[in-house]
Amino acid sequence: MTTSPPLPPLSPTARSTVRRGDRRAVTDRTALHAVLDAGLVGHLGVVVDGAPLVLPTGYARVGEVLYVHGSTGARSLRESAAAPACFTVTLVDGVVYARSAFHHSMNYRCAVVHAVPRVVADPAEHEAALAAITEHLAPGSWDHSRRPDRREGAATAVLALDLSEASVKVRTGPPGDEERDVAAGGDAVWAGVLPLRTSWGEPEPSPDLPAGAPVPAHVRDRAGQVAGAAP
Amino acid sequence: MTTSPPLPPLSPTARSTVRRGDRRAVTDRTALHAVLDAGLVGHLGVVVDGAPLVLPTGYARVGEVLYVHGSTGARSLRESAAAPACFTVTLVDGVVYARSAFHHSMNYRCAVVHAVPRVVADPAEHEAALAAITEHLAPGSWDHSRRPDRREGAATAVLALDLSEASVKVRTGPPGDEERDVAAGGDAVWAGVLPLRTSWGEPEPSPDLPAGAPVPAHVRDRAGQVAGAAP
Repeated sequence: MTTSPPLPPLSPTARSTVRRGDRRAVTDRTALHAVLDAGLVGHLGVVVDGAPLVLPTGYARVGEVLYVHGSTGARSLRESAAAPACFTVTLVDGVVYARSAFHHSMNYRCAVVHAVPRVVADPAEHEAALAAITEHLAPGSWDHSRRPDRREGAATAVLALDLSEASVKVRTGPPGDEERDVAAGGDAVWAGVLPLRTSWGEPEPSPDLPAGAPVPAHVRDRAGQVAGAAP
Repeated sequence: MTTSPPLPPLSPTARSTVRRGDRRAVTDRTALHAVLDAGLVGHLGVVVDGAPLVLPTGYARVGEVLYVHGSTGARSLRESAAAPACFTVTLVDGVVYARSAFHHSMNYRCAVVHAVPRVVADPAEHEAALAAITEHLAPGSWDHSRRPDRREGAATAVLALDLSEASVKVRTGPPGDEERDVAAGGDAVWAGVLPLRTSWGEPEPSPDLPAGAPVPAHVRDRAGQVAGAAP
């Protein structure tokens, strides 16, 4: 994905301004894009009958637009068109062990997007969005697999979320202990980070695939790789 | 965590009934507990000024109650007390490669809880919840590290979400391809699952820890383990 400078700063509104732990807020678009591109699944929040509904979904970023898709019958997608939505992508990088329970934390990267989703009606944009979502989930699959036919395309709703109102929060590094706890703990109370690593395993062929069917490079080369690593 | 039979079935209300892909819905409490216990972070959705806000947070399950905590200054926690909230935990287990782009999918486990959070005011429940949340994040830390003092406890809001209205959705196994695509693909179009595995890395001691400080068993034994595996 490429971006076109000049890029506006993030957080142009009150609700997308990170309030807690300001030192963890990141305010450039490169960081926003990096988190969105590294994540595999996001959580879409919509309001249904006055109550929030939060569901996981795949997605893709194309420039300054984020696309999500789903069945045209899915209530969460119907409800979120033309009504405020929130889309959050979180990558957990580790658990932070501190001398105090209070300062235990997580290292993470999190992007929060606020937008009123637009239903994608234009056929070319609809197809490009499906291609991007497929490629984000499974790079190489758009060309390798059969593309959606007319019926499948019609059954798939695509929503576009503008990235203009968004925030990014990142925590890295060791715990932020109180000085008194560092002194009192000595070498008896451990403090540090236990990293969490997500990686791709070995391909598991579908049982209905002919024996010995070759695993194509776009799948084989992903196996063993770290997923969602920081750039 | 233990549960007390007899357990009510899940999904007692319309909104917690899984509508799409019913074959993926799971309706017993054991499955709900398993997903909640396997996850590390959940996404709390609340409504702020009519718009959804979705933020990641740690949590813990104690019987049929889910606890989340946060700074008493955090807007998401203030807003969600005594107003409808949604708490979603998702574990992604793999990407499903199909012969068609349309049938690409993910293997995952997802729990969705609908509740009106209750602010935990009782000191004993407050402390027990903080212990559970700390132990869920970092098992062994509640006893190893310094427990919250009066000031830290007062700065930490705890919300309780009843698990009575919840749903679980799980997808496992190979792609669900169309017969025509299986026939047409032969051995030229790959189909199957690329598993995603999350595991704990090697402990990274805090720079302010004395050289040679031993890594305690509750941290050391977690390193190399798979995180969030299905039971």
